[in-house]
Amino acid sequence: MGNIQLARSNTKIAVIGYGSWATALVTLIVNNNYSVFWWIKNKEDLESIQEKKKNPRYLKDIEIPFQSLTLSCNLNEVIQKSKVVIFAIPSPFLHQSIQSIQKNDLINKIVVSAIKGFETNTKLLISEYFDYQFDVKSENFATISGPTHAEEVAKLKTTFFTIAAENTHIANRISTILQREHIYTYISEDVAGVEYAGILKNIYAIAAGIAVGLELNDNFQAVLLTACIRELEITLDKLAPGIRNINHSAYIGDLLVTAISPYSRNRKLGYLLGKGKTAEEAFIEMEMIAEGYYASSIFSQKYGQDYPIASMVYEILYKNANPSIEINHLIAKLQT
Amino acid sequence: MGNIQLARSNTKIAVIGYGSWATALVTLIVNNNYSVFWWIKNKEDLESIQEKKKNPRYLKDIEIPFQSLTLSCNLNEVIQKSKVVIFAIPSPFLHQSIQSIQKNDLINKIVVSAIKGFETNTKLLISEYFDYQFDVKSENFATISGPTHAEEVAKLKTTFFTIAAENTHIANRISTILQREHIYTYISEDVAGVEYAGILKNIYAIAAGIAVGLELNDNFQAVLLTACIRELEITLDKLAPGIRNINHSAYIGDLLVTAISPYSRNRKLGYLLGKGKTAEEAFIEMEMIAEGYYASSIFSQKYGQDYPIASMVYEILYKNANPSIEINHLIAKLQT
Repeated sequence: MGNIQLARSNTKIAVIGYGSWATALVTLIVNNNYSVFWWIKNKEDLESIQEKKKNPRYLKDIEIPFQSLTLSCNLNEVIQKSKVVIFAIPSPFLHQSIQSIQKNDLINKIVVSAIKGFETNTKLLISEYFDYQFDVKSENFATISGPTHAEEVAKLKTTFFTIAAENTHIANRISTILQREHIYTYISEDVAGVEYAGILKNIYAIAAGIAVGLELNDNFQAVLLTACIRELEITLDKLAPGIRNINHSAYIGDLLVTAISPYSRNRKLGYLLGKGKTAEEAFIEMEMIAEGYYASSIFSQKYGQDYPIASMVYEILYKNANPSIEINHLIAKLQT
Repeated sequence: MGNIQLARSNTKIAVIGYGSWATALVTLIVNNNYSVFWWIKNKEDLESIQEKKKNPRYLKDIEIPFQSLTLSCNLNEVIQKSKVVIFAIPSPFLHQSIQSIQKNDLINKIVVSAIKGFETNTKLLISEYFDYQFDVKSENFATISGPTHAEEVAKLKTTFFTIAAENTHIANRISTILQREHIYTYISEDVAGVEYAGILKNIYAIAAGIAVGLELNDNFQAVLLTACIRELEITLDKLAPGIRNINHSAYIGDLLVTAISPYSRNRKLGYLLGKGKTAEEAFIEMEMIAEGYYASSIFSQKYGQDYPIASMVYEILYKNANPSIEINHLIAKLQT
């Protein structure tokens, strides 16, 4: 642990990813006066950002600061030059995107996950995946959780990051990199709990959307959301035993804003399922994919049917179960 | 306790109040084949409902069933003829509306509160008020809580009532009166806890609205809502000690839908405060009053400044405190 030293002016940071969340993190961290190496896979995208100082595809109106920013298509070079490597790639694309990284490349790096979801290839938590695939030990790993909607972070709207790491020294150092006016941090040691909460909230947002699609509104949403909270608590106690208060932003807070926000992709997916579409039809209509779709499959395959709400979502997504019948089964369970 | 008998076909029920909530309850209970006596203060309103079979002011599109319904302007007669008396009047108007009731009038009646808030004249919980004012003992009292938005109940959208009573026999009987397809009930013995939760959620909805008015959006809402949940739990433990799981619809569930719904009057009031209006200006703009306005004053006068979020709302509503400065104080507290 002791051999990893971070100093504000010297610490070089890699951001791996090109989407809105990566763009927001780059903007924040460069503005905090750190040297950032930003890996952008596609050369045309890179040149476009270099030229326009904006990401033409995500957070299009955000000015990207260049005073200490280097763009590169060379993943290995970006990692080699950096001490802290932040991965901000949607979980289904993580594995294929970073195939060129070798085991030794991440030795003595601080690896930070800004990813919510299981790694879809290995079906592991992101922390487990980096350990399994690259020997990144828990003392060198941190996860950033939220809710931290990219656009709000980029616009410096009041945000509390939760930074979870077994190594508190590292959590504090990541905290220093991210903090500024209106951007605050909570420190946690509950890496797996925070990761599972970030996965489950997408599944529960699909459930909330299904109910809305079936025209079950506020009165039932209150019942369903509190049932989700209880299931979340039971699941975390089982899968990541330990003492935690889930009444914090990375647990219940993230669940609530995801499940209730009409902008949530997962809720929208659920809504369309509730309206009678299949998952495939919903994705065509949405023109995008929701992470809860993958999370649901992996979660139910790994942990079975003991979790009524997660199971319901899985059956509707993957087994063509009828949403109305499934919700009625759930309502029957909620009466006891 | 034993002398109060309820049988489905014979039980006569009074509903006291004329607003949307009273209208929904009357519709539900008449459709459940009970004889209902509905007290409507104003003779013209009564005649209008009698003629049109709809309430011209609230839930205007709901057909009111008349097969076992009697309307009356005579409060004492309505109560005299009934065994169960359901009060569904906004808390600020309760005391003045029922001045003609004498102490003896409610002896041997089952009194049901469908009211959220303190009685504003005595500053008591509704259960305490009926005891103080009319000698209604806890064994004859029940409170109905929710969330139970009137329009959803009237349209038989899936709803779980929470019926809290120290006397479980009475809770079960009220449950029988209200249940039907899509309308379910939870039984609770936590009368005071449910009443306080129904009061506090309106105060916290104002807080959530203030934040939105200050353009603090999803990322901060997650932090604020979880802080409200923690404050709710602490407050209930202090003011109504006992064992409860607040992860149920009458506690956290009701708080969430009230704090997040853009249709919530309390949230709207907070929003306008956040935008720099005074409470008086907000009420003029809204053309109505929010119950959290009264609740905040009574709560803070009775219980002091130990509850940071409730105190913040009180200072902004009644002491002209600056919302932006107050929220920043709260954010500072939330960092620890």
